[in-house]
Amino acid sequence: MSTPARARRPVVAVCGPRDPSPEVAAAAFTVGGLLIARGARLATGGLGGAMEAASRGARTAAAWVDGDVIGVLPGADASSANPFVDIAVPTGAGLGRNLVLVQMADAVIAIGGGAGTLSEIALAWQLHKRIVVLDLGEGWSSELGARALDGRRTDTLLRATTASEAAALALGR
Amino acid sequence: MSTPARARRPVVAVCGPRDPSPEVAAAAFTVGGLLIARGARLATGGLGGAMEAASRGARTAAAWVDGDVIGVLPGADASSANPFVDIAVPTGAGLGRNLVLVQMADAVIAIGGGAGTLSEIALAWQLHKRIVVLDLGEGWSSELGARALDGRRTDTLLRATTASEAAALALGR
Amino acid sequence: MSTPARARRPVVAVCGPRDPSPEVAAAAFTVGGLLIARGARLATGGLGGAMEAASRGARTAAAWVDGDVIGVLPGADASSANPFVDIAVPTGAGLGRNLVLVQMADAVIAIGGGAGTLSEIALAWQLHKRIVVLDLGEGWSSELGARALDGRRTDTLLRATTASEAAALALGR
Amino acid sequence: MSTPARARRPVVAVCGPRDPSPEVAAAAFTVGGLLIARGARLATGGLGGAMEAASRGARTAAAWVDGDVIGVLPGADASSANPFVDIAVPTGAGLGRNLVLVQMADAVIAIGGGAGTLSEIALAWQLHKRIVVLDLGEGWSSELGARALDGRRTDTLLRATTASEAAALALGR
Repeated sequence: MSTPARARRPVVAVCGPRDPSPEVAAAAFTVGGLLIARGARLATGGLGGAMEAASRGARTAAAWVDGDVIGVLPGADASSANPFVDIAVPTGAGLGRNLVLVQMADAVIAIGGGAGTLSEIALAWQLHKRIVVLDLGEGWSSELGARALDGRRTDTLLRATTASEAAALALGR
Repeated sequence: MSTPARARRPVVAVCGPRDPSPEVAAAAFTVGGLLIARGARLATGGLGGAMEAASRGARTAAAWVDGDVIGVLPGADASSANPFVDIAVPTGAGLGRNLVLVQMADAVIAIGGGAGTLSEIALAWQLHKRIVVLDLGEGWSSELGARALDGRRTDTLLRATTASEAAALALGR
Repeated sequence: MSTPARARRPVVAVCGPRDPSPEVAAAAFTVGGLLIARGARLATGGLGGAMEAASRGARTAAAWVDGDVIGVLPGADASSANPFVDIAVPTGAGLGRNLVLVQMADAVIAIGGGAGTLSEIALAWQLHKRIVVLDLGEGWSSELGARALDGRRTDTLLRATTASEAAALALGR
Repeated sequence: MSTPARARRPVVAVCGPRDPSPEVAAAAFTVGGLLIARGARLATGGLGGAMEAASRGARTAAAWVDGDVIGVLPGADASSANPFVDIAVPTGAGLGRNLVLVQMADAVIAIGGGAGTLSEIALAWQLHKRIVVLDLGEGWSSELGARALDGRRTDTLLRATTASEAAALALGR
């Protein structure tokens, strides 16, 4: 009487700044496309900068279908989403949206990033999520490297140096 | 270089109880399927009962594609979603998840329902969302009927008596 | 080495509209004062109208001490609190602040009220809080009366017709 | 007809781990007492460890009055608060309670700390709060020191090495 239940596709959150350098934006674009190509959905904070670059990249993947790009917004209505977001989730929670973003992800990729990205990494660590930090020589994702944030986990942040490596580490393959 | 931005598909939230009567469950199932058939996505609270019935119904629509059924969960991880949810949004906000559910919807359909559904109707009213109450002779969606909840809006709740009418009113066509 | 732990004083949430009638405002003012006089703290949504009237009333009680009036705000900073709030809790959650307000209360008193107050009553019901509806002939607190919202509880809303009765019912004495 | 509105007393949030070293717990205890002695209220995450130590310390101050110690809890009911909390704010937001805690504070003092404290520092930075990191040779408050987290602010974290210095820096005097 209905389609049999199947495993939900993995969701990877890509976190990065609203005012990225060209290198960070390009990496976010590439990562977004690779994640879709490898069968994942993309979730971002839904606004501009690295979030928009990743979303735009996801739309370029041949495998992309409408619904693959999710934007988890700080505001209470969908109008602030960048135009490449397929599904807008307006949390109305302000900075609290980062928590929803991380909670819905199976893995998190941080690229560059300031205090916002740092808080997302710290939240993801507490939630025992797989975390990839893409080291392009700038921001917290570069500064932290392959370290543990505290003693609650025996693993570390996963350091990547290319977009391709970041996507592979996030998906564990 | 990327797929041109398009309008996002409308999202309709279906709200109803975890312990529905057979009539409410059947209506939720039918509404879920009709919404997908008419081009909308479905969002629910992601758990069992009327939420699961609507999600299961959506999966039966010929037009369904993976990503059309969204579950906005009260808990902080995706594992509590019913098996017909394509995309789980674990808010970790408890009853606050109802606010995210309503905010992400272009329209809300309430079927039967107790205090949880009543709070969703009251939130949707404050957010100036289109609200359809399906009157099957039980719960708040039947008791409220085509009335205004207060003076802030000049319109009223939209009363439907069949699943088909509810879907049509929600989509404004 | 420290003050022995004591029972926390009860907290009563007073819910009502931002644009109250003179009767509703006067009742909120009186209720606020009575709650403090009887040993409770007052919590409101922290803004104007009935929220401000209740807070102002609390400040008039001879028993008032700084800290007795709490304002749980929708915004992310304290500046929107009315001037009679002693402790501002800026939730940044928009309408989600109503959930925090109700969660922190041992009892809820609704006075008059539109859809916002209705959502607070519905949330408080789900959280199994003691709920007093002050019937002054207007708003949802008058319309609902001494009824149950659904079958999950065996008790009902507690109907009061005077401020004094509302305070007494809220405190169970 | 009512007490004239006065400036609200400053609120200082003290952030630290649930499993503190004796040195961190002692510093939290001392900081809690000093903040009350100097006219501030104390807010913490309301649970055990450094949060409880700070709350207990606040209760020892001669200036303490009931209402000075606020616990902003992750859960939805007040029962998880440590016994030295005067006012419990059960957010029901899980890790999202850290955001409410920081938003309600005029200044934040971090002591020791793992990923939870790190996320609070990163949130407070984004919210342009005054942030004191007490360097006792352990945790993120020691590792970060007097640095900027990103380029959005021209100031830095304020490094203290004693509880007394931390309280003074938090209060700007």
